[in-house]
Amino acid sequence: MLPRLVPRQPLRLFRWQAACAQGASVQRRTWASRIPRLLGPWGPVGNSPPVCRRSSSTPAGSPEVALTQERYPVKRLPFSTPSEADLAAFERIIPGRVVTDTEVLAASNVDWLRTVRGCSRVLLRPRTSEEVAHILRYCHERNLAVNPQGGNTGMVGGSVPVFDEIILSTALMNQVISFHSVSGTLVCQAGCILEELSQYVEARGFVMPLDLGAKGSCHIGGNVATNAGGLRFLRYGSLHGTVLGLEVVLADGTVLNCLSALRKDNTGYDLKQLFIGSEGTLGVITAVSIQCPPKPRAVNVAFLESPFYVLIETSGSRAEHDAEKLNDFLEQALRSGLVTDGTVATDQMKLKALWALRERISEALSWDGYVYKYDLSLPTDTLYDLVTDLRARLGSQAKHVVGYGHLGDGNLHLNVTSEAFSRSLLDALEPYVYEWTAGHRGSVSAEHGLGFKKKDALHYSKPPAALRLMQQLKALLDPKGILNPYKTLPAQA
Amino acid sequence: MLPRLVPRQPLRLFRWQAACAQGASVQRRTWASRIPRLLGPWGPVGNSPPVCRRSSSTPAGSPEVALTQERYPVKRLPFSTPSEADLAAFERIIPGRVVTDTEVLAASNVDWLRTVRGCSRVLLRPRTSEEVAHILRYCHERNLAVNPQGGNTGMVGGSVPVFDEIILSTALMNQVISFHSVSGTLVCQAGCILEELSQYVEARGFVMPLDLGAKGSCHIGGNVATNAGGLRFLRYGSLHGTVLGLEVVLADGTVLNCLSALRKDNTGYDLKQLFIGSEGTLGVITAVSIQCPPKPRAVNVAFLESPFYVLIETSGSRAEHDAEKLNDFLEQALRSGLVTDGTVATDQMKLKALWALRERISEALSWDGYVYKYDLSLPTDTLYDLVTDLRARLGSQAKHVVGYGHLGDGNLHLNVTSEAFSRSLLDALEPYVYEWTAGHRGSVSAEHGLGFKKKDALHYSKPPAALRLMQQLKALLDPKGILNPYKTLPAQA
Repeated sequence: MLPRLVPRQPLRLFRWQAACAQGASVQRRTWASRIPRLLGPWGPVGNSPPVCRRSSSTPAGSPEVALTQERYPVKRLPFSTPSEADLAAFERIIPGRVVTDTEVLAASNVDWLRTVRGCSRVLLRPRTSEEVAHILRYCHERNLAVNPQGGNTGMVGGSVPVFDEIILSTALMNQVISFHSVSGTLVCQAGCILEELSQYVEARGFVMPLDLGAKGSCHIGGNVATNAGGLRFLRYGSLHGTVLGLEVVLADGTVLNCLSALRKDNTGYDLKQLFIGSEGTLGVITAVSIQCPPKPRAVNVAFLESPFYVLIETSGSRAEHDAEKLNDFLEQALRSGLVTDGTVATDQMKLKALWALRERISEALSWDGYVYKYDLSLPTDTLYDLVTDLRARLGSQAKHVVGYGHLGDGNLHLNVTSEAFSRSLLDALEPYVYEWTAGHRGSVSAEHGLGFKKKDALHYSKPPAALRLMQQLKALLDPKGILNPYKTLPAQA
Repeated sequence: MLPRLVPRQPLRLFRWQAACAQGASVQRRTWASRIPRLLGPWGPVGNSPPVCRRSSSTPAGSPEVALTQERYPVKRLPFSTPSEADLAAFERIIPGRVVTDTEVLAASNVDWLRTVRGCSRVLLRPRTSEEVAHILRYCHERNLAVNPQGGNTGMVGGSVPVFDEIILSTALMNQVISFHSVSGTLVCQAGCILEELSQYVEARGFVMPLDLGAKGSCHIGGNVATNAGGLRFLRYGSLHGTVLGLEVVLADGTVLNCLSALRKDNTGYDLKQLFIGSEGTLGVITAVSIQCPPKPRAVNVAFLESPFYVLIETSGSRAEHDAEKLNDFLEQALRSGLVTDGTVATDQMKLKALWALRERISEALSWDGYVYKYDLSLPTDTLYDLVTDLRARLGSQAKHVVGYGHLGDGNLHLNVTSEAFSRSLLDALEPYVYEWTAGHRGSVSAEHGLGFKKKDALHYSKPPAALRLMQQLKALLDPKGILNPYKTLPAQA
């Protein structure tokens, strides 16, 4: 008898705990250790707002973010500087949607983590792929650098300019193009917000195959461009499998329409794959076709305590079957001592409250000050070792060394916080973290990508031949290098 | 009460039927209409041998297959002709594994459908990727064309030479490199036979994420190179999602090691995706890392009659839960009149017998004589219309017009048979079938690829900008065009 695991039991207060990882034999969605209690014991958690990464959620009165060009050793490439004539030309392409307002630009120049900042003086808001094509054709000819921007929720400084790149925002490209109610294929513009798409397809009996903490702000185009992983990765797999088609505008303004809504299509090379995860450096994604799985009729979330907090979500088509399987598992886990305490949720509000604990870790950490973020893939057996290792190594240099992530995917989110950016702490972390990861045959970027901040770490996870081919692909698709420069690939010698 | 749908009821004889498709609301794996009864009513079906596509399974005494260069308007490109000195060089690279035996070559020059035939005079059997690299480096320098060959089970003439290309067989590259018993990640050489890998991982509690009729002969490297779909596509998704890593030897002999065994890896462009489905024209896949899902503890196969024969497989973790769900569905389907009769199997032997009916259709059709094969993706609502349309159009010109495929994937296998190859029948089929498909926004190759026979149809499913980019990628990765020439991409003007 395990009364404490029966649904609808009050949510317990979580104690701070940290110890070694244990073996796991089931589908564990995500896990977290040393989560600070977010917002008091009760009401606030149950009523937490939808997660939304905006500048408004950053601590008030925080100091101005240092300019990237001042903090990092990076040199501006010889692109043209946007002139008054250029602005006039843009105004002709997208009348009334050329933004030079300093407040809007200030928000779009800085990442939501407040770690990098560009100095762009113009932001463009096209509504159609034709407008994007027109803009890129113009920029290509004029040798103007372009920074494509979705919801600006990235973790690696990929979504904001490094210098004065023109910001090309997908914010107004937010239309659903079609949805097939039998197959679940959604075709939409790149600027649709993930959470809004979720609501749209859920009303029609489907779910998005991906979900992530930033869903309230992130754009589907950005999700695809960064090959976002997220909370449903274990259940529905990678975007490389669920994205059916893309429309992409290439650097020279060519529209590449591979927006197939077909599940299978083996006609030639699968070009769309090139752009999934290329962070806007090979082309600008303007529309996405994606396979949505049927909405599960039964969802359970279990939040368990042991040395680690473990969040498990099950989804299925019949509530009583799922409850039976989950209860059997929990009984077994408790009996074996692997789990010491926990709670199970089936109703929407409690379910969301539990997920909010996980989804808001990133936001919570940002209140510590500066956050050094690492997103590593490691063999499951060594997934947590780096956290304990770093705690010993850094001592009081760091405010917190936090490890959480996705146990089922072998994905560790390693976060080190300090009052403010410190070069000596960075030097203590890098290249140590990368070398440790490479030594364990891991990846230095599991799901966050490389962007600006991690691009020089690429060689820790990919051999020279792969790097060479990547550079060749970049040169083929964007010979002038105007698309999201200073990102993804290390600067060439 | 529906006694006829209870498991273990005798398999009924199937009547020939053909009519319109009906709407479907459940996971239907594959469907077939007008299946000829394969091998008598009982014993033979229950004891059918593993499906194995070899020349031995073709009708005895069938006439010599016409040379591709005589049947099709194709011109040999100016590659070097393999000389005695070349053979001696190969002998130094792979001693004792340079095959010039005419009988072996005869089998390797012709596809299993007996529709295309090359005249290669040498077949190489490397054991390691280093040997493949050495061979390609040599061929690249000498401008010798190379035809990579796995199990030679392809449907579009992609796996045999068109002229005298050197056949590079993966048959001896058949070692499992590693298997992780918790994550289910399998790493193996490209020449491993799919069915043997299935047995290997099933003994360890996992299954391969793909399965197809040719499993007894096809190589995993060939599966990946052709982006094989198959029978588990609906359940586990595309190889673009399940393949975690590849080792590929490029045209110039460079070994590209992207053989990651990690589930998530966002370090730079996902290069492996380029080679999935590129049919050996961009590089030779020498090793594969693939994610195997846990072996389902319960499997049900339902074979139903209505206007169409429908085969449904369910897989889950608890037999009684799955039986309950399936019975409820069947009851509903029968009550609604959508299904008129059927049988359900849970035991291995009957399950295999039912699957054999589906898996051996292709082989069965080959006994008709010549088979014109089309593998189309179409919107589900129009999936069968082309079959009825063609029956009316072709009349007695065709022996049979057969449509079967994968309802859940929107994939129609359209097969037209005749006594022997006939140019006038081909002209009645093409470009009509392709134009019909393009007119319905379908794909002219769902899962079979383009190979030699379909390459000129590429433009029906991809726009000029995509074709151009594919040609550029080919030129980048294989500037001399030595890898599987005359395949995948149309000849350039």
